[in-house]
Amino acid sequence: MEKNIKNKNQLTELRQDLVTGDWVVIATGRAKRPEDFAVNKRVIIEEDSDKPCFFCYPEETGQEKDLLIYETSGGDWSLRVFPNKYPAFSKEEIVNHNEEGPYFSMDGTGYHELFVTRDHKRQIAQMDVLEVAEIMDAYQNRYIDLMNKKSVNYIEIFHNHGKEAGGSISHPHSQLVAIPVISPYIQSELDGAENYYRTNKKCAYCTMIEWESEHKKRVVFDSDDFIAYCPFSSRAAFEVWIVPKKHKPYFERMSDKEKLVLAEAMQKVMDKIYKALGDPAYNFYIHTSPCDGKDYPHYHWHIEILPRTSTWAGFELSTGVEISTIQPEIAAEYLRNI
Amino acid sequence: MEKNIKNKNQLTELRQDLVTGDWVVIATGRAKRPEDFAVNKRVIIEEDSDKPCFFCYPEETGQEKDLLIYETSGGDWSLRVFPNKYPAFSKEEIVNHNEEGPYFSMDGTGYHELFVTRDHKRQIAQMDVLEVAEIMDAYQNRYIDLMNKKSVNYIEIFHNHGKEAGGSISHPHSQLVAIPVISPYIQSELDGAENYYRTNKKCAYCTMIEWESEHKKRVVFDSDDFIAYCPFSSRAAFEVWIVPKKHKPYFERMSDKEKLVLAEAMQKVMDKIYKALGDPAYNFYIHTSPCDGKDYPHYHWHIEILPRTSTWAGFELSTGVEISTIQPEIAAEYLRNI
Repeated sequence: MEKNIKNKNQLTELRQDLVTGDWVVIATGRAKRPEDFAVNKRVIIEEDSDKPCFFCYPEETGQEKDLLIYETSGGDWSLRVFPNKYPAFSKEEIVNHNEEGPYFSMDGTGYHELFVTRDHKRQIAQMDVLEVAEIMDAYQNRYIDLMNKKSVNYIEIFHNHGKEAGGSISHPHSQLVAIPVISPYIQSELDGAENYYRTNKKCAYCTMIEWESEHKKRVVFDSDDFIAYCPFSSRAAFEVWIVPKKHKPYFERMSDKEKLVLAEAMQKVMDKIYKALGDPAYNFYIHTSPCDGKDYPHYHWHIEILPRTSTWAGFELSTGVEISTIQPEIAAEYLRNI
Repeated sequence: MEKNIKNKNQLTELRQDLVTGDWVVIATGRAKRPEDFAVNKRVIIEEDSDKPCFFCYPEETGQEKDLLIYETSGGDWSLRVFPNKYPAFSKEEIVNHNEEGPYFSMDGTGYHELFVTRDHKRQIAQMDVLEVAEIMDAYQNRYIDLMNKKSVNYIEIFHNHGKEAGGSISHPHSQLVAIPVISPYIQSELDGAENYYRTNKKCAYCTMIEWESEHKKRVVFDSDDFIAYCPFSSRAAFEVWIVPKKHKPYFERMSDKEKLVLAEAMQKVMDKIYKALGDPAYNFYIHTSPCDGKDYPHYHWHIEILPRTSTWAGFELSTGVEISTIQPEIAAEYLRNI
């Protein structure tokens, strides 16, 4: 065993992201076994126990009106979408550009919405496929409603679970933020995908899917329209991407059938992560083409899921190079077999 | 007061980084007063209380030999540098490039060292200027020793304090990682500085220093050779940069006098942050020109200090756009007056 670990130590690797060209460190010299990544103790989100949960009773706690509501056959609601009471962005339609000496800024114009599912505790890992498909449908629905607004050039849909993942409310919910700028990570993927296509006459994501499907060692779940795998250059332990198998630049153009198959993949992967890591904190988010009126034929939309089993420290903050302590192949095998 | 907050809400801003062009969000609609950022409760680093602290007794706990040791006049040690027992990188000199289908990787060749100060608890905020100058001297000393190694193209020096900042050992220590690749954040600053120079015939950092010195509203501490200020596009609440006032691309060329003045600025700023935020977790790191044999005449080295009063969530991980909840001007005024 000791010897084995020594060998792994020597195998510390720098791996390059196929799309962005960025490097990650797979530092297996510090390796633990996959089962050692399970979370022992989570930081509790402190909530005021005297007050009703905002999200269990949104109509009683001063939330703005629903933008979207899904109902069960019994007449109760199952999912609702409403504006964030404490938005990071305000809704004015005009974007003002400002200057201060050498610096540039603009008004924080945009939309900030919340997607809340009915149950105070059940997360995607515990839902059935139709419930997850409803969430995907709501994401798409709100996306389409906002994508043509004048001030909106990118729409970010994301989910924070647990305090270690930046969550401040324990009731499961996703968020949508629609903003006037294309964010640096997205820009870097768009540029990378464009460059890759120019050099190789092929989509970078399609290239990865083909390789992963054939070799299977990083595949976590595979179905008709979607493949889930731990990326070669994983930034976090047990990171998983869910990617449409056909070349699709635009998330919002998903068909009803695709939404169902995606929901199945999401539910299966989240369940595996839940069981493998013992209800860890996590983030997931959708990366898709901007809605700025331009075409992005070489981008390929996908979902990235990042379990939060470690904290970004000075090295990561300073360099943008992440250090992961398990090989993606070992993480994938462990998740696949659950 | 209520009205004041309402007004601020409308002032949510997107601010652009002068060097990289990246955007941050200053979301003061969620604003707290500066004093409300003080940390109430820190996550404790769990250490084995039966065992002696690795860093108090490095010679007794199987650490490799010192690379550098500073002694007090009384014969005790005051600072020592040794290789990390659990390095993220191994020392082999040859960098092997590998391929797996469409992917590229290389061996994780490099150096990983620890800088440990004598006292188990005293951090820079509590040290005197000469002690801090010794740390700066050790950084420079190790940098110069490693910068010409064949496999080393960038040297990252950083410090993690507290579990929220990714620290796993409470005894104050800094780290040095010397790696074969130039990391994405550094590359983005190098490119940005180069572009800024080409367009404006002036260093981007010198431009900022000039503006900040003149207007003073974001200045935290000012001295002969260094200025400390909260950057216009702060990524974190109470972020502070310490920047040499003259145009200097290379950290390692600092003079003895400059090291003393830097030590004074570091000590003062860390003390202010300690008092303002109540011993928060933080990271700081040095950003300097690569040591890859090329010249970087338009870059300007500096130290970035990031208190960790909030957790990066899905939005930040997905976009690279950070949301800060206090205006840098207000944070700077608060720190300045301490």
